[in-house]
Amino acid sequence: MPSMADTENLQIRLASRPFGPCGAEHFTIAKAPVPEPADGQVLIRTRYLSLDPYMRGRMSDAPSYAPPVEVGGVMVGGTVGDVVASRDPSLSPGDTVLAYTGWQEYGVQRATTVRKLDPDVAPVTTALGVLGMPGLTAYAGLTQIGRPRAGETVVVAAASGPVGATVGQLAKILGARAVGIAGGPGKVAYLRTIGFDAAVDHRAPSFAADLAAAVPDGIDVYFENVGGPVWDAVFPLLNDFARIPVCGLVAMYQATSAPAGPDRTPALLSAILRKRLTMQGFIVSDFGADLQAEFLQRATGWVRDGSLRYKEDIVDGLANAPEAFMGLLAGRNFGKLLVRVS
Amino acid sequence: MPSMADTENLQIRLASRPFGPCGAEHFTIAKAPVPEPADGQVLIRTRYLSLDPYMRGRMSDAPSYAPPVEVGGVMVGGTVGDVVASRDPSLSPGDTVLAYTGWQEYGVQRATTVRKLDPDVAPVTTALGVLGMPGLTAYAGLTQIGRPRAGETVVVAAASGPVGATVGQLAKILGARAVGIAGGPGKVAYLRTIGFDAAVDHRAPSFAADLAAAVPDGIDVYFENVGGPVWDAVFPLLNDFARIPVCGLVAMYQATSAPAGPDRTPALLSAILRKRLTMQGFIVSDFGADLQAEFLQRATGWVRDGSLRYKEDIVDGLANAPEAFMGLLAGRNFGKLLVRVS
Repeated sequence: MPSMADTENLQIRLASRPFGPCGAEHFTIAKAPVPEPADGQVLIRTRYLSLDPYMRGRMSDAPSYAPPVEVGGVMVGGTVGDVVASRDPSLSPGDTVLAYTGWQEYGVQRATTVRKLDPDVAPVTTALGVLGMPGLTAYAGLTQIGRPRAGETVVVAAASGPVGATVGQLAKILGARAVGIAGGPGKVAYLRTIGFDAAVDHRAPSFAADLAAAVPDGIDVYFENVGGPVWDAVFPLLNDFARIPVCGLVAMYQATSAPAGPDRTPALLSAILRKRLTMQGFIVSDFGADLQAEFLQRATGWVRDGSLRYKEDIVDGLANAPEAFMGLLAGRNFGKLLVRVS
Repeated sequence: MPSMADTENLQIRLASRPFGPCGAEHFTIAKAPVPEPADGQVLIRTRYLSLDPYMRGRMSDAPSYAPPVEVGGVMVGGTVGDVVASRDPSLSPGDTVLAYTGWQEYGVQRATTVRKLDPDVAPVTTALGVLGMPGLTAYAGLTQIGRPRAGETVVVAAASGPVGATVGQLAKILGARAVGIAGGPGKVAYLRTIGFDAAVDHRAPSFAADLAAAVPDGIDVYFENVGGPVWDAVFPLLNDFARIPVCGLVAMYQATSAPAGPDRTPALLSAILRKRLTMQGFIVSDFGADLQAEFLQRATGWVRDGSLRYKEDIVDGLANAPEAFMGLLAGRNFGKLLVRVS
């Protein structure tokens, strides 16, 4: 059980639904009693909270693939934490687990729905990044939809983030050419150090020309995380039979109206027909346990042998989670964004 | 060899490239000598010329998957004709063949590139329609991209045309529910007679509501032949994981500018992600000979046993081809449009 000092559970709750950019006013910090685990449950003390772009969707009640967070409810999110009390024989206090307890210091969860982590295999934070949901997202989208062949060109946006960086490195492992798009010279330089063949700064005035120069043979796979102006620059460079896994559209999550015309939908449909493009949206949970097991086995090996690298951006203190999350949506993080909670 | 009366070869040539709707002024009728077959070639007298929407693309020199017809050149197209002279042992005068001799009375072609037709198997005109390129287009798009499961809802536009009518009937054969969209009450009534579960008139003021009512469980496969306002009505009705084979966009082929805003591209990308849609463009030649052989075997059986029906719209006289073609682009044909040349 938690110590006496920890009878209170700090939480970040959704204060109101943002329309457009989310700000500090949409979150509230609150204290609740530390919950008691029921039979079959464990009480988990959060060590790290993962912050991910999809959470912006959960703040909204627009139609989505997942129900929204209730106003007044604790923000959801993946966590790594320590079991502090267990009412299930499979887990003991001191075990470190991957859980989904959200933006709070303590959470209870059914023992069957957490995964025990072995810190000797890889740092436990990787379960929220390169070996977790973002890594599997990259693996699933690239191997199941993008399907690059050796020698093809794979372009990925938000390339210094945990999904994008993994996409590029997986593309290299699969024998393709990897080109990353990121915001700012520091991120661009980083992409080259982890093996991208080329990297382009979408904040540069010459971005569209830079991207065209970086893909002399066109684009065979575009892994879409962003939308917006990045998509506009990629679109004319797509080759015949290009595949476009649509994984995220972070540049568009906070838009409040459609952009001005003309309506370019017909141009997109025409290109899909003329170039025989395949565009396919997906979320990581669309894929089965078999793919996840395959991913975990392969990716753990690649992380351990150094062929799959990762970068973490760690913010201290749960109270700083809202500001860190706003920075994530604006592209201010550099690597997998985590909050060190305890 | 042709009779003395036929030493002249009537041809329809491309007079100039249309920008926007094509009209009579973009075609010219001309006479040329009947060509002589070289070694390995046959001389074919056209009986039927197929008119198809893709020909509008060949009149333009905008980027496309196929080179344009040269200005002054004979319009291209599939034909059924009789061999009148052969310089290849595989074919003899009197044989009826599927060829690609275009909008003219006579053409020469390598014998290895035509297919001999057996009029006892099916009427030879079916080689240009239900058992030809349009039928294979329907089969390939539906079985390779749409992949309807039993009980799912398949919607097809231009449903009384040779591709659309085949799509709907194939959907029924595969156990799906078939809903057709066509222009005018006559076409809509026809769709019901060939087994569509529902049919909707896109010219009716209540079209969008009619379509919604016709798909109470939403749309799992939308076979896109049209684009434009039909796409707009279909789009909000697509189910999660819907598949959209993009086969044609006939409503957009003659557009000269993008429609007014707002730009709905972001809404389309968002739906692709949120609903995990798959949009894939294709043309029939993307698929291999194996699929064509499978199609021909299965579809011939279905035509012979009456489970796959077809309708032909036959115009007499090559000189009437341009006007018939303009009618095709405006949806005035009713069934597979053919020109009886001789």
